[in-house]
Amino acid sequence: MPAARKEFHINPRVVAAQYAVRGLIPMRADEIKKALATPEGRAKYPFSSLVYCNIGNPQALEQAPLTFFRQVMSLIDAPFLLENEQVTSQYPADAVARAREYLGHIGKGTGAYTDSAGYAFAREIVARRIDERDHGAQPPADASSIVLTDGASTGVRLLLQILVGGAGDAVMIPIPQYPLYTAQIALLGGTPAMYYLREGEHWALNAEELASVYDECVAKSNATPRVLVVINPGNPTGGVLERGVMESVAKFCCDRGVVLMADEVYQENIYAEGKRFVSFREVVLGMPAPYNTDTVLVSLHSTSKGIIGECGRRGGYFCCTNFPAALREQVTKMCSINLCSNVNGQVMTALMCSPPRRGDASYESYWAEYNGIFASLKKRALLLAEELGSIRGFSCQPVEGAMYAFPTIQLPEKYLQHNAELNAKEGRTLAPDARWALELLENTGVVVVPGSGFGQLPGTLHFRTTILPPEAQMERVVRAVRSFQEGVWAKYA
Amino acid sequence: MPAARKEFHINPRVVAAQYAVRGLIPMRADEIKKALATPEGRAKYPFSSLVYCNIGNPQALEQAPLTFFRQVMSLIDAPFLLENEQVTSQYPADAVARAREYLGHIGKGTGAYTDSAGYAFAREIVARRIDERDHGAQPPADASSIVLTDGASTGVRLLLQILVGGAGDAVMIPIPQYPLYTAQIALLGGTPAMYYLREGEHWALNAEELASVYDECVAKSNATPRVLVVINPGNPTGGVLERGVMESVAKFCCDRGVVLMADEVYQENIYAEGKRFVSFREVVLGMPAPYNTDTVLVSLHSTSKGIIGECGRRGGYFCCTNFPAALREQVTKMCSINLCSNVNGQVMTALMCSPPRRGDASYESYWAEYNGIFASLKKRALLLAEELGSIRGFSCQPVEGAMYAFPTIQLPEKYLQHNAELNAKEGRTLAPDARWALELLENTGVVVVPGSGFGQLPGTLHFRTTILPPEAQMERVVRAVRSFQEGVWAKYA
Repeated sequence: MPAARKEFHINPRVVAAQYAVRGLIPMRADEIKKALATPEGRAKYPFSSLVYCNIGNPQALEQAPLTFFRQVMSLIDAPFLLENEQVTSQYPADAVARAREYLGHIGKGTGAYTDSAGYAFAREIVARRIDERDHGAQPPADASSIVLTDGASTGVRLLLQILVGGAGDAVMIPIPQYPLYTAQIALLGGTPAMYYLREGEHWALNAEELASVYDECVAKSNATPRVLVVINPGNPTGGVLERGVMESVAKFCCDRGVVLMADEVYQENIYAEGKRFVSFREVVLGMPAPYNTDTVLVSLHSTSKGIIGECGRRGGYFCCTNFPAALREQVTKMCSINLCSNVNGQVMTALMCSPPRRGDASYESYWAEYNGIFASLKKRALLLAEELGSIRGFSCQPVEGAMYAFPTIQLPEKYLQHNAELNAKEGRTLAPDARWALELLENTGVVVVPGSGFGQLPGTLHFRTTILPPEAQMERVVRAVRSFQEGVWAKYA
Repeated sequence: MPAARKEFHINPRVVAAQYAVRGLIPMRADEIKKALATPEGRAKYPFSSLVYCNIGNPQALEQAPLTFFRQVMSLIDAPFLLENEQVTSQYPADAVARAREYLGHIGKGTGAYTDSAGYAFAREIVARRIDERDHGAQPPADASSIVLTDGASTGVRLLLQILVGGAGDAVMIPIPQYPLYTAQIALLGGTPAMYYLREGEHWALNAEELASVYDECVAKSNATPRVLVVINPGNPTGGVLERGVMESVAKFCCDRGVVLMADEVYQENIYAEGKRFVSFREVVLGMPAPYNTDTVLVSLHSTSKGIIGECGRRGGYFCCTNFPAALREQVTKMCSINLCSNVNGQVMTALMCSPPRRGDASYESYWAEYNGIFASLKKRALLLAEELGSIRGFSCQPVEGAMYAFPTIQLPEKYLQHNAELNAKEGRTLAPDARWALELLENTGVVVVPGSGFGQLPGTLHFRTTILPPEAQMERVVRAVRSFQEGVWAKYA
């Protein structure tokens, strides 16, 4: 017998961090998936496959990649293909030209480390795309203010690490929020300061409440807010901010000396009629002095969402606006410690910011693919909110943007008792919506994330589901959720 | 005039972190590089280009990628190519077969997030390669003990974050060390506990000293060592450990309950006659009880070094041996917060661990490329150590492995005064070897990293240079360093 293992010390901040999107429910789902591969497992469950609605992962749910981007990337991965006419003749001319153009900047060493902040040419492309998106807001975006990252998550981590040193540093976050934020705050030992979105008003942000959240944080937690996070379009809420609200938020951040962190990874995912994306950068630069020069803003984007959906590529960027030199210097150093983001993600980010232009060989086919995906996402967004809203005890705000519905669920009083009894029996502390999501999974094979993983107004219950299952599967999801929830009411009412 | 900017708070741990490999000297090099693009700049310097010897970045210095790996990757990035015979006819059959095999596991969604720990099939390939490398050490490596990462750096960060929570937690590191370690320890607020390698004995590790380093750390810093880092082959030292020493290190870690972190990214880079790589995993599993079961070991590898040199791909893995469940659980959670490593890096890691097999179409050409690169690295390693060792005031240990020479430099007493005077004038605190490296750069265009960035015995001075410049450039490097150093002695002796 080996001697008993020593206890190994674990960083308590790591123990404290939670991430529901890949937490208890998805882990149980993976066990069930394995079980379904065996005859005994299949006999145990009333379904033969799972539908993963827990994570915004479009290409895992049959969304096809945009062809042009993959064509260019394959040529950059294997530059020797460009010397073989039998191969290049099979590619559209603009894909070949684009690969040559990028390789002209990169040189032969497409496997080398890049600049810490990413290829200079790619950052220049990003900067020009930002200018176009922001209608020429002045001053223009500068490649030296752009950092290419392994997805937006890496950017969030790097920036929060610079700004949050311990319990005395707070981060103002929306509730509900994307749990990356609470996880990173926990890892840094920082203090979350929560501001609540208004569910009944399409999850609107009430900028007037920010001051009291700030003051209460200082008074009660003895922590100074250093960063305010806004997710627009909202995750998990799907809400899209109004320009006037954004101005108030920027003004608040500037007045209080708080860094404004704008998570804008869903900027291309807006479905609601009459709504369009306005970036915080455009808003800030359009404000009167001193707000246009003194609001310290970092805006994050990603190749994982939008229409491109290249999650596994781990591409993205952040753009710094009005960063003081001391902050900028730390960003540069932190990037250098991390060496650089992956080159395929960098290339994908450049491509996302410069799709085929009118007159290019791939122009028509690119936009046909793009518009097809967008139209389908929009259709599913509308359908899902409407269908979920019609289920007993559910109420669902419209999915104006992003990739998720976040309905309220009401459960019978006895269901809460049922959960409390099971928790006692199992030695667990599942929230009622976590129990509900677990039982939904066990009974239907549909994987969603309980609202408690995102934060919610005390006393309310929610879950998050993506709008991503293909239209046929979406029907199965709605039917399954409806019948499960009716069963809950029938059994526990 | 805009109002004066508010002071922004910065995490003091971030301010404290340093990373010399991309620090002062390389940043100055980038400025010079920009200047050299203009006629005025060219007039200012006695050289027209730089040689970057500061970072192990083979493909930036003309090392070609291994063709087979790029072929497979291009097909996986653009799976539609597989349906086009005109394209596939231009690839070797085994590249096409390999791409189909991997895509069979991945499915259509090559842009989707993978499992948090990476594709299961890729982890299985890594596990089988580890078994082969370790001569069937028992028990076999298990895919569930492998985590695919964005390069080895990401693995180091994740693991140290789990094990180090603050100043009470120490990490034992070799001196000199790769500065990623001191940077991450600083970011976590941990305590470094330094053990010194013996320069005169090919930078050997003296396992007998570890106990006193541990005890002194507890007594003087009030910090408990949680991790012991070993870099084998050594960076920056080039030393290769003996099996007996490795056993003593493992025994020490097991007895003291310290996690053994084996940085083995240079495992394929051993040039010294009679030396070969033995992994810590093989050593540990070959020890008698309880060491074979109770030594908690994590071994890191990367696609950036070796012969493959795919730094920009950000691929790599770590392998956990004898991890207690509680530790393993935190690894899983931290991976889930980070979503997953990039898919191209994962594919490259799988390829690195399963090159073409005998009988495959690419077998001969793959090994011809591989052996060519290896032979050239070996030649440069021998040449560089010998040449540097013959320079006045230099003494250079043989480069047994890895990609660097780390010579001692002796400087005239007056040079130290010269540095002190300049520091006073410039308001800086450059170490003498940093001044030397800076002046070497300004005078010759050769970029190296001062020894003070890695740590060195007090009173000694060193610099690190890679062995990577192509053979023709290597001559320029040696000539430049020799003539600069002779100039220093002529002027300050």
